[in-house]
Amino acid sequence: MTRGFYVGRFQPYHKGHHNVIDEISDSLNELVIGIGSADKSHTRRNPFTAGERYVMISRAVEELDITTHIVPIEDIDRNAIWVSHVQSLCPPFDIAISNNPLVIQLFQDTDIEVREGPIFDRSRYQGTRIRELMIQQEKWEHLVPDPTVEAIHEVGGVTRLRQVVESDDFNGQRE
Amino acid sequence: MTRGFYVGRFQPYHKGHHNVIDEISDSLNELVIGIGSADKSHTRRNPFTAGERYVMISRAVEELDITTHIVPIEDIDRNAIWVSHVQSLCPPFDIAISNNPLVIQLFQDTDIEVREGPIFDRSRYQGTRIRELMIQQEKWEHLVPDPTVEAIHEVGGVTRLRQVVESDDFNGQRE
Amino acid sequence: MTRGFYVGRFQPYHKGHHNVIDEISDSLNELVIGIGSADKSHTRRNPFTAGERYVMISRAVEELDITTHIVPIEDIDRNAIWVSHVQSLCPPFDIAISNNPLVIQLFQDTDIEVREGPIFDRSRYQGTRIRELMIQQEKWEHLVPDPTVEAIHEVGGVTRLRQVVESDDFNGQRE
Amino acid sequence: MTRGFYVGRFQPYHKGHHNVIDEISDSLNELVIGIGSADKSHTRRNPFTAGERYVMISRAVEELDITTHIVPIEDIDRNAIWVSHVQSLCPPFDIAISNNPLVIQLFQDTDIEVREGPIFDRSRYQGTRIRELMIQQEKWEHLVPDPTVEAIHEVGGVTRLRQVVESDDFNGQRE
Amino acid sequence: MTRGFYVGRFQPYHKGHHNVIDEISDSLNELVIGIGSADKSHTRRNPFTAGERYVMISRAVEELDITTHIVPIEDIDRNAIWVSHVQSLCPPFDIAISNNPLVIQLFQDTDIEVREGPIFDRSRYQGTRIRELMIQQEKWEHLVPDPTVEAIHEVGGVTRLRQVVESDDFNGQRE
Amino acid sequence: MTRGFYVGRFQPYHKGHHNVIDEISDSLNELVIGIGSADKSHTRRNPFTAGERYVMISRAVEELDITTHIVPIEDIDRNAIWVSHVQSLCPPFDIAISNNPLVIQLFQDTDIEVREGPIFDRSRYQGTRIRELMIQQEKWEHLVPDPTVEAIHEVGGVTRLRQVVESDDFNGQRE
Repeated sequence: MTRGFYVGRFQPYHKGHHNVIDEISDSLNELVIGIGSADKSHTRRNPFTAGERYVMISRAVEELDITTHIVPIEDIDRNAIWVSHVQSLCPPFDIAISNNPLVIQLFQDTDIEVREGPIFDRSRYQGTRIRELMIQQEKWEHLVPDPTVEAIHEVGGVTRLRQVVESDDFNGQRE
Repeated sequence: MTRGFYVGRFQPYHKGHHNVIDEISDSLNELVIGIGSADKSHTRRNPFTAGERYVMISRAVEELDITTHIVPIEDIDRNAIWVSHVQSLCPPFDIAISNNPLVIQLFQDTDIEVREGPIFDRSRYQGTRIRELMIQQEKWEHLVPDPTVEAIHEVGGVTRLRQVVESDDFNGQRE
Repeated sequence: MTRGFYVGRFQPYHKGHHNVIDEISDSLNELVIGIGSADKSHTRRNPFTAGERYVMISRAVEELDITTHIVPIEDIDRNAIWVSHVQSLCPPFDIAISNNPLVIQLFQDTDIEVREGPIFDRSRYQGTRIRELMIQQEKWEHLVPDPTVEAIHEVGGVTRLRQVVESDDFNGQRE
Repeated sequence: MTRGFYVGRFQPYHKGHHNVIDEISDSLNELVIGIGSADKSHTRRNPFTAGERYVMISRAVEELDITTHIVPIEDIDRNAIWVSHVQSLCPPFDIAISNNPLVIQLFQDTDIEVREGPIFDRSRYQGTRIRELMIQQEKWEHLVPDPTVEAIHEVGGVTRLRQVVESDDFNGQRE
Repeated sequence: MTRGFYVGRFQPYHKGHHNVIDEISDSLNELVIGIGSADKSHTRRNPFTAGERYVMISRAVEELDITTHIVPIEDIDRNAIWVSHVQSLCPPFDIAISNNPLVIQLFQDTDIEVREGPIFDRSRYQGTRIRELMIQQEKWEHLVPDPTVEAIHEVGGVTRLRQVVESDDFNGQRE
Repeated sequence: MTRGFYVGRFQPYHKGHHNVIDEISDSLNELVIGIGSADKSHTRRNPFTAGERYVMISRAVEELDITTHIVPIEDIDRNAIWVSHVQSLCPPFDIAISNNPLVIQLFQDTDIEVREGPIFDRSRYQGTRIRELMIQQEKWEHLVPDPTVEAIHEVGGVTRLRQVVESDDFNGQRE
């Protein structure tokens, strides 16, 4: 049995994420999907709550042929202990998959194998860009799996994001 | 679609929990299982990590006929905002099920319906009692679903608990 | 102009507190009343929120002949910096009044004068005892100023306290 | 009885704030004034402590014909639970007044009515601009109520702000 | 070069600690001495600040024939990540020495060797007992190295402890 | 006996720091060196852990003729209480040395004397610039004491910094 770990902020979950998970599924029996910055929401970079992101992901991965475990992971604001923090919250995993150089580095300092994931047209599938399209009232729906589009609409996600960007720094969270 | 919410510390997950979930499953389409005190471990009251408890639960509920979402919930140390904290981390739910008077009270102050769960021989199925049996080297396995017994043995849980109780207060966590 | 500082948890505000404030008012122009453990509520020791305690106090001190400023003060969990924490949150004050030996000691290490307050029949007027009377369904109303009694009834305070004491340790807060 | 809630960082309290409070006073019996980011001070964006801001506000609102309650509110760094946090610290209120789109949005998700406040020449009355004038040694006093000007001078506020802006990132607080 | 790690709360540093350090010095080139619960002070269990404990230790170990590094370690309140926390704050070490079963267990889960230290008459040399003697106004000085006795007297440590034990729960810290 | 206090983030420790310490050593018997932002690492501004910085400093100051105490100081994110925080963690000191205007200001509000340190060619000896040289693969070693260069190479510090800057915001820490 091989269990993998894949982490992202998923603001929102998009086809780039979905393609990675689909492709790595072949070599894994189970996948733990960590929702990073689970404590953040209602900001330009992190518009959606962890619960909303949970729904986006769980609906989309239903169509994939792999058992997934979705785990919200609150920020601990100390990179040197982040891997221990993740391990304490998640079912044990054998391999971490990431394209984030810092995540790769932090896992390399432990006894957990880490592997770069496949990359799918990163210029298109990118959270920052999708949020920008939402703000500009342009088309973004084709970049996101259909069940995720629906989940975003259910919570009025686009309207929320547009309101959020009009606000200053608030409650200790800056954009 | 009705989605319920059921929360516990699950130290460990036992047949009392399992019977409640089994019984409430009939009236629900999905169930969110919140792992409370997810940040705590290696103490007399909270010997297991959230990740270990996740495994105990996910293996046991596989046999039940309901879609479950398991969500670790770190303590926020402020009861008055605990419900908001839970809501931000979990998929939205329509009803909370609990027998804890404080949890019932906190949900009553919101717009979420809360219902008492069925009770199964609470003198037998009780986390405190099961941990005491483990410490005293007595039989506890019959009080816990078989897949959970296995999960506890995999992490050397009983040995850990016995070591933990020999330690004083440590790292800000007292028993 | 002399501004004093008086701190308590006020769970609940009672005639012991009220008598102290009344008596020290003569020698002060203004009084800052700090609500300690403002982040705590819904426990046996701290049943009421800071907002509820604010109402209890503000209604009762209206009848006194002194300008008051009520300031909720969250716990900072580090005694050595508690005085700085208080000073950063409150209007500046010239003298602190307390009968708590630790508060007296912490202020003595600073440049702020600290003075013991008068004591009014401490065996009667004591938060612990009043909460115990509430739990036991005995008479407590004569120990608390009338406007505070009313404020407690408005939030169903006695019922809440009774429910709270039936609950175990929860959300990191133990009694 | 109608009690309103109005929140700001008040760095510093200025005539824009004062005019809003004056105008909304007519429709309210009491007003809770929340001092946001109460834990922050000695930075470019947040030069003044909560205690100093408390003095600025309390002296200025004395001339208004409304009962006010000033409540310092520490940042909780999680927008999704900020409204619960506010409610636990403040006397209960019936309506929130704000022009901040995020505050409006967060209150809209609760059962509390929220209303936009009147706007008074926002290009003039703006905390950022007033702090910039202080830094540039230009005139700012006409933008702030007289008692607030005095309170700022008493703590050497302008000198402090000028020193603060010469410092780098410090103690986890960046400007 | 072998560098060891030895952790305690040192409330106060006593001859039991001193003897352990003396004995293990023979097999080490350098020793990192971690001051646990560095954020705690002014309580019955933790009367002294980390800075005061630093002085107690540094003066006493001067006479020993080993290079020491004293590092205050704040509690992180999550046992599962405590070892990572320690490693991020201390110079790297090859071996941990402890007689605390939980510390031993937490290090065993990492790649750091852990060894039990020698034990010196634990019924005599014990922090709890020494603090009790101080409170009861009995002799305690013979249980503590002379430079530590002096350091305790310099800060009025015994008087402080006696005052502290007369206080209730305060500021979120209970004894 | 005069004990001084000198604080920096030391990312990395460089000859500017070293020259200051060397020069102020003449007028002091002992020096407490505080490692600020001890909880931060693996970011562009704070690439090294406190433990790594401890090694950089301790090896370099060995050659100086002064007794030093190196104390990691975690950020407390509230400037108004930072001095109390420092005092609780460090051996008591008589004088603080700093060129940071905010540190100077915060100490001026206490009863501790603060003095500006000598400045050594700040355009050359500056953490930001040295980190930039590392990232650009240019020469930086001449700006840092030799033992520190060695300590940085031992932990692969330059490679780490280059990886870190390729990462986005992560785990609540932004650059």
